[in-house]
Amino acid sequence: MASPPRQMSIGMNILGLGGHGAAWRLAEVPSNSLLGVEYFQNIARISERGTLDAIFLADGPALNGNVATNPVGGLEPTVLLTAVALATKYIGVIATASTTYNDPYNLARRIASLDHISGGRAAWNVVTTAGDIAAQNFGLTGAPLHQDRYGRAAEFLDIAIKLWDSWEDDAVINDWKNGVFADAKKVHTIDHAGEHFSVRGPLNVRRTPQGRPVLVQAGSSEGGKSVGSRYADAIFTTQTTLEDGQAFYAEMRNRARAWGRDPDSLKIMPGLSTVIGSTEAEAHARCDELDSYQGELGLAGQIAARIGIAVSDLDLDAPLPWDRIIDVRAAQRDANTRALGGGSHGFFEAQINLARRENLTVRQLSKRIRSGHRLAVGTPEQIADTLEEWFKSGAADGFNIMPDMFPSGAEIFVDEVVPLLRRRGIFRTEYTGTTLRHHLGLSRPKSQYEDEEDCERLLAV
Amino acid sequence: MASPPRQMSIGMNILGLGGHGAAWRLAEVPSNSLLGVEYFQNIARISERGTLDAIFLADGPALNGNVATNPVGGLEPTVLLTAVALATKYIGVIATASTTYNDPYNLARRIASLDHISGGRAAWNVVTTAGDIAAQNFGLTGAPLHQDRYGRAAEFLDIAIKLWDSWEDDAVINDWKNGVFADAKKVHTIDHAGEHFSVRGPLNVRRTPQGRPVLVQAGSSEGGKSVGSRYADAIFTTQTTLEDGQAFYAEMRNRARAWGRDPDSLKIMPGLSTVIGSTEAEAHARCDELDSYQGELGLAGQIAARIGIAVSDLDLDAPLPWDRIIDVRAAQRDANTRALGGGSHGFFEAQINLARRENLTVRQLSKRIRSGHRLAVGTPEQIADTLEEWFKSGAADGFNIMPDMFPSGAEIFVDEVVPLLRRRGIFRTEYTGTTLRHHLGLSRPKSQYEDEEDCERLLAV
Repeated sequence: MASPPRQMSIGMNILGLGGHGAAWRLAEVPSNSLLGVEYFQNIARISERGTLDAIFLADGPALNGNVATNPVGGLEPTVLLTAVALATKYIGVIATASTTYNDPYNLARRIASLDHISGGRAAWNVVTTAGDIAAQNFGLTGAPLHQDRYGRAAEFLDIAIKLWDSWEDDAVINDWKNGVFADAKKVHTIDHAGEHFSVRGPLNVRRTPQGRPVLVQAGSSEGGKSVGSRYADAIFTTQTTLEDGQAFYAEMRNRARAWGRDPDSLKIMPGLSTVIGSTEAEAHARCDELDSYQGELGLAGQIAARIGIAVSDLDLDAPLPWDRIIDVRAAQRDANTRALGGGSHGFFEAQINLARRENLTVRQLSKRIRSGHRLAVGTPEQIADTLEEWFKSGAADGFNIMPDMFPSGAEIFVDEVVPLLRRRGIFRTEYTGTTLRHHLGLSRPKSQYEDEEDCERLLAV
Repeated sequence: MASPPRQMSIGMNILGLGGHGAAWRLAEVPSNSLLGVEYFQNIARISERGTLDAIFLADGPALNGNVATNPVGGLEPTVLLTAVALATKYIGVIATASTTYNDPYNLARRIASLDHISGGRAAWNVVTTAGDIAAQNFGLTGAPLHQDRYGRAAEFLDIAIKLWDSWEDDAVINDWKNGVFADAKKVHTIDHAGEHFSVRGPLNVRRTPQGRPVLVQAGSSEGGKSVGSRYADAIFTTQTTLEDGQAFYAEMRNRARAWGRDPDSLKIMPGLSTVIGSTEAEAHARCDELDSYQGELGLAGQIAARIGIAVSDLDLDAPLPWDRIIDVRAAQRDANTRALGGGSHGFFEAQINLARRENLTVRQLSKRIRSGHRLAVGTPEQIADTLEEWFKSGAADGFNIMPDMFPSGAEIFVDEVVPLLRRRGIFRTEYTGTTLRHHLGLSRPKSQYEDEEDCERLLAV
């Protein structure tokens, strides 16, 4: 019997009121939606109707952006996604949290709690948080050096995994007749002592349904790729051309192999911003309408923010100011500097590489990239085509979709694009399991302390 | 017209499977209940049926206790209480979190998120977390010095309040037609620079339904009383005799006055452990059955743990070993020492004061105090009598109830004791508002930055 065809994974990125910076201007939903849970529960239910793998929430511990003109700020993701998990049954929930501005014990516990409450649907999107404003909320004058952030992140992940493993799966006995709760030999201190942290353990939450909650990582710098290929189950990445996507895909699989991992255990999921219409003309009209709300300054501003230069240094109808960008890039390449003011390496590289290669003006670039990711404007068939192409040509295992507006952009994707993918045999028609690991095709890891005990037993023979 | 009679407040303390250490042995609920949300949602719904003010979750960032014989560990409270809030409509949710092992920005945001999600029902129970095991999960070898913990707590609270105030109530305009989101002049950086923290702000969550989530404080040491009387809306305390309760009540109101506060804005709520039966004999039989499961070692152990000495140093039928206790107390009185191994000042004083005053053996003491709080074993009338007595004689504004077992102990309290309190006119018959502040009879505070602006405007005239 033939093995079932490879299936893609799809995440829905709930970025405020939409991936387009002017989505809130169209006011599809009441003005206080972002502070309630119903808005997010609704998008999650729509996504679950489309048998998507997960919903995703970006986050940072700071009020970034212009509060006068943008709906900034939002509920803390682990709290918000608890509410979403309770309103759904199958879909995964991916919470972003920073390794730079959290402690491993508290965060590992919160993610574990979410995994228990959701019945095995929790993931943590690991970020190191660039930008000085966040740093200034935590006693620093500026963000820690890039290499220090990633050094801390690697150690943080090591600890989180140890804590999640600290209760073996069968540690709890719960024999109330005899007053026995757990087998103390199967609940382990982790006694971690490293460069950035010392953590005793064990975690004060027993092992979770997924064994370990899913780890997602989104950094594309050397540090990000190193940490992601070593620890992550899924990589969210920004890739603007198929060739770049293929190169990144191959590189990350090779890196995973170098860490001794099966490369199939690392799922590569580029982002895709979508504006979908029944016809190409309708899609472009929708995009143009949103762009008109954002205005020229807004279009330039979203480019400027992600490459770390002032919007006043950009001319919409000229190429990027390469002399200034070379300065930023040189500084960023040096791992010992703080990378960009609030930006990320991946967004930076994606934008400038595309602009340089195709010699784009700022305005042309703004029509190719939105929310830092490749923008696809077109019919459901055209969206399905580009997903299938990337999926089948070694550039992606799945995608993180950023619709232009919510909820309409999510509804169009689920109701118009997903059926095409299903018909083409590359996306599930129903959920076949209840955990995010299952949806992603990942196995459930054993506790590392279980292995340790096995070794001890073998040595004792 | 006569003003309505003063009403008491009641919180339900969901301490694991019950306030009695052997509650889990009777297995009223499935063995995995503590990891699910239904168990907590069910107790919250029972409590809401009784128009109680709030449910309460104690917590610490460590696995404390003997995992072999006690069901230890649990879900993180802000996450868990999000699930509880969504299953209820009126009842408040009080999450315990440590000022010693959190950062103000992250925690203020999480509590604010819970306040938004619950529609104004969130409270934070502020603790400084004694004990070395927690410390060792955060890079320390032992708990910070007592006075340092409370110094940090005071500054932490100051910052949390500033962050909650950082968006004025009318900061958000949301005029999407004109692309205006907020009035930037009403969103304030806090620019806090203190001994323990530097925090820029503003918070990345707008102002919450309660203005500021309710602050609960439970420390009874000098540091605890100082911080609590200054910042808290409600004080949870352990008081074992009416006289002690009255003295503490008067002291805390005087302290509040000294901080320039209206003493009525500080609600004093002693804990009460309950074992309730239709007759006195039935109540005592229920308590004896639970005690038999705990055994003599268990009875001694719960005393030992709270006074910081080894269980092997206790003889059940002898008085407390005063020579050793004097050592512990002397060390504790010195504000520069770490107080007790894992215990709290309040529990320590409550137990030894009662034992000394009434010359109790360890066994006798164990029948007077459970889970560190005064134990009442009796009929619903007897329970109502002691609540009324304390409430009417200047010892309490309300109570934090710790039933012996869940859910039965909560059901008996709600169905048998609450109706008596209502008939006596000292407890509400229905909710008259939807926020916890309203239930507690507390006003909604203005943002401190609003006042600041008023001053500036006045000065500008």
